Amino acid sequence: MTAVTETIRNGVDTEKMFGTLDLIKAQPELAKFQFRATNRWIDGAHNRSTIRGFYAACAEDTSRAEAFELDAGEPAILLGTDTGANPAEYLLHALAACLTTTIVYIASARKVKLTSVESTLTGDMDVRGCLGVDEEPRNGFERIGVSFRVTGDAPAEKLREVVERAKARSAVYDMVTNGVPVAVDVAVD
Amino acid sequence: MTAVTETIRNGVDTEKMFGTLDLIKAQPELAKFQFRATNRWIDGAHNRSTIRGFYAACAEDTSRAEAFELDAGEPAILLGTDTGANPAEYLLHALAACLTTTIVYIASARKVKLTSVESTLTGDMDVRGCLGVDEEPRNGFERIGVSFRVTGDAPAEKLREVVERAKARSAVYDMVTNGVPVAVDVAVD
Repeated sequence: MTAVTETIRNGVDTEKMFGTLDLIKAQPELAKFQFRATNRWIDGAHNRSTIRGFYAACAEDTSRAEAFELDAGEPAILLGTDTGANPAEYLLHALAACLTTTIVYIASARKVKLTSVESTLTGDMDVRGCLGVDEEPRNGFERIGVSFRVTGDAPAEKLREVVERAKARSAVYDMVTNGVPVAVDVAVD
Repeated sequence: MTAVTETIRNGVDTEKMFGTLDLIKAQPELAKFQFRATNRWIDGAHNRSTIRGFYAACAEDTSRAEAFELDAGEPAILLGTDTGANPAEYLLHALAACLTTTIVYIASARKVKLTSVESTLTGDMDVRGCLGVDEEPRNGFERIGVSFRVTGDAPAEKLREVVERAKARSAVYDMVTNGVPVAVDVAVD
């Protein structure tokens, strides 16, 4: 008989995961991260963010070989030329991606092999708010709907528990549902 | 003497903009939009959103020739392989892009020609929250900082007013600062 220890589950190295958690428990200062984006207006509704460096585990992380460049835009009906997804759609993507990754990490930690994780997100907006036509509608989405379909080698109840735990731990779900203090400073020189 | 009417300012068709605002004032039901994203897990921290159709002005919008595909990932220290910016970084991009586009649209409406709009965003996170190591830190950013540098053919005070108005009208700034109700449903079949 051979005892097989599988440390990679769902593409996640669980040995490294548990090692990271132990390190952070022992040295909480390792948990202080700072993520960043720089953005530059190009023309009209077209602007581009560059994302690369971040601070993590008491040091500047320089492991990324290249920067990520993300182009934003608007469709014609909102006066753009579709140079990229629009900002509100990027927010839906951020939410979908964070919940999905959190589901995958939690499933991996709980020894659940996933087969598929799919989601559809909708955001309802009355654009009178952000266009300044009416004071009543809010600027952003009134509500967001997320529909997940998750399959894997665990009973339905266990898969549901993984999704519930992901909601309770997702960074972007927390930010989108609870809000974050944002400080804006402006130089006009 | 020739009176030149410039309708395109900062790449924004202001005649079309004011026409859109008049239409929406007359028919508020045109303002109901729904944006969407579908996401599919690929492996580990890698997942991909597809964004194309949306509902606007009482109809399904089919003007986009192609879908936008957005890949998310995590850096090595967070158990990924950098298949894309991470979800929290995408949220920073969404915020930067929305404030920037709102600045450009408002400047265009107010006859301000912009030369540049640049921003740097930072998000501070204690990852003990989202990793489930400690109950005290929240999962998401504790705070977000946004530094804008805006130049154009207007007095400093007017440029500052444009940024202030953009904060008051940006859809993503509203969502990130105030939060949005999110309903999650799950199918595990």
